[in-house]
Amino acid sequence: MPELRRDPVTGQWVCLAPGRASRPEYLPTPSEPADLPGQCPFCEGNEKLTPPEVMALRGDSEPDGPGWLVRAIPNLFPAFSEAEGPADLGDPLHTLGPALGISEVIVHGTDHDRWMPFMSDEQAAAVMQVTQARYQRHSVPGVGSVVALYNHGRPAGASIAHPHGHLYATRMAAPLLEQEVLGADDAYRRTGGCIFCRMVDEEAEGPRAIFDDDDFVALAPWASRGPYETWIIPRRHHADFAEADTDEVANLGSALRRVLWRLHQELGDIPLNWYLHSQPLPAGSAPRSYHWHLEVRPRLADLGGFELATGTFINTVAPETAADGLRGHGDPSPEEQPAGLI
Amino acid sequence: MPELRRDPVTGQWVCLAPGRASRPEYLPTPSEPADLPGQCPFCEGNEKLTPPEVMALRGDSEPDGPGWLVRAIPNLFPAFSEAEGPADLGDPLHTLGPALGISEVIVHGTDHDRWMPFMSDEQAAAVMQVTQARYQRHSVPGVGSVVALYNHGRPAGASIAHPHGHLYATRMAAPLLEQEVLGADDAYRRTGGCIFCRMVDEEAEGPRAIFDDDDFVALAPWASRGPYETWIIPRRHHADFAEADTDEVANLGSALRRVLWRLHQELGDIPLNWYLHSQPLPAGSAPRSYHWHLEVRPRLADLGGFELATGTFINTVAPETAADGLRGHGDPSPEEQPAGLI
Repeated sequence: MPELRRDPVTGQWVCLAPGRASRPEYLPTPSEPADLPGQCPFCEGNEKLTPPEVMALRGDSEPDGPGWLVRAIPNLFPAFSEAEGPADLGDPLHTLGPALGISEVIVHGTDHDRWMPFMSDEQAAAVMQVTQARYQRHSVPGVGSVVALYNHGRPAGASIAHPHGHLYATRMAAPLLEQEVLGADDAYRRTGGCIFCRMVDEEAEGPRAIFDDDDFVALAPWASRGPYETWIIPRRHHADFAEADTDEVANLGSALRRVLWRLHQELGDIPLNWYLHSQPLPAGSAPRSYHWHLEVRPRLADLGGFELATGTFINTVAPETAADGLRGHGDPSPEEQPAGLI
Repeated sequence: MPELRRDPVTGQWVCLAPGRASRPEYLPTPSEPADLPGQCPFCEGNEKLTPPEVMALRGDSEPDGPGWLVRAIPNLFPAFSEAEGPADLGDPLHTLGPALGISEVIVHGTDHDRWMPFMSDEQAAAVMQVTQARYQRHSVPGVGSVVALYNHGRPAGASIAHPHGHLYATRMAAPLLEQEVLGADDAYRRTGGCIFCRMVDEEAEGPRAIFDDDDFVALAPWASRGPYETWIIPRRHHADFAEADTDEVANLGSALRRVLWRLHQELGDIPLNWYLHSQPLPAGSAPRSYHWHLEVRPRLADLGGFELATGTFINTVAPETAADGLRGHGDPSPEEQPAGLI
């Protein structure tokens, strides 16, 4: 059973999930995720290889059968679960708590080989629709934060090649979200406004802009932690991704697809992560100063000893250089990009 | 010129060092560091390919010529340097400061292919002697912290195969060191003693112990952030690595060599980092509650989207399992381990 252990010096919490090691990921990592031809649990027709779905976009097909567009299932190797575990908050050397939460997988489509940059806008919108629905479902009292994320490529943590995202709802709020909320609140007090709204206003044009549309601005952040880091920020101020409206959610899919397409054109099939940052719960805790957004983290110059030892980053590519490169790529031609829900 | 940029939301500082990109490390990373046969700047006889040495252990040979054991040189691609750069601390969106500091390289020996687990104890002691000397040299007023570290393997950040460590002295103290000092001080107030000393007392035997000797305890930490994380903690309480005595420094080399040897026996030639954590400066700021130590971070299940998105870690191998495996390996036989200074 997963458990949370607290470092006695830093206070850092770690989720210890040895059940997941039946996935042999602690052995020297292969360069590619497992391809599992014919036995992929996320392929259409293999639905019985996964736990029963918790949600799917389907026509009139039967649950846990073929005929779906996007499918959400419990993670078979959960790092966080609803089971109560042992807890000992009093021992200063061995502080322990249960890893309470939910771990879900969102399969992005039936096509084993087609990930987001090569999807249609309609399919990307469907992915985001399910992601938001699961986010909303788990934004309930007792949950500290919900995070949706994606791992592309083995060095970024993907263990199965079929495109799929993850959703974690945990009793403990994510420390980075708490840091962002505190920082944004501090910026609000110093500047009199939401710092993300100011970024939207000042960075939508200029040397770090990548593109923008009616709903979103894509930019290379001022203090990019690594080469080609990209943020997608909604123009409309809201702290909570659960409150994004239908059009925004669909357009987020499109904006993310376009960012990933441009990264692919510029750099090839690189490993990367993306994740949604929305306010920690309870909902409404930071409505004026926090602003939900999506961060894309290419894994090129990967974290070395300096980053691990110090907690700061060395980045060798200026965000202005990265944005300039990414601005130079348009959208795929109709021949390269499918239409409709595939 | 390197610069420090501050994230307007989190306050995170990032060192932007585009000069380093003449090293092509932001391209999709090769699986191995550059081997550079015959042209390796760290091999004996090629000393003229590096900046002039700042220190070397040599007999009566000439500086910047052959005939050395360990050699320290300025980093040709410094992330931190003594040059003043532009600064703007007032702009909330674009806070900027100069990346003031020192970046040095410590070449661990003349043998291109022999890294620490396969060195003699004498050579490992020589490496640590130079590391401490450079650490002491840069522990001066105006420096925030000094960190010595090592990258093994491309996924851990090594760009040149010849074994070499890094030393960074920066005006800004490393955030992780500040977090450790605050946490250790808090633990001192709660428990009435140094939390590291308590770890030495309680963990030197038991399920997370790996080995110990008169000067050091090697253990798998309670809240290991990844598989086979290992800490080496000196028995003698001191906040500052600069104050370790000659025997301790020599024995630290031996203890680290033994840890790396056991990791190699257990897991093969895996990528890893190690780094020294000593108190931030000015020296003496945390003499009773902080305790210098060395952390080894194998890079097996590498950081995925969860870690990047949340700032917490999922670890699939219990430290008790890792320690049990590492306890099972002894030292190399005399045939496998050279004697003397090589």
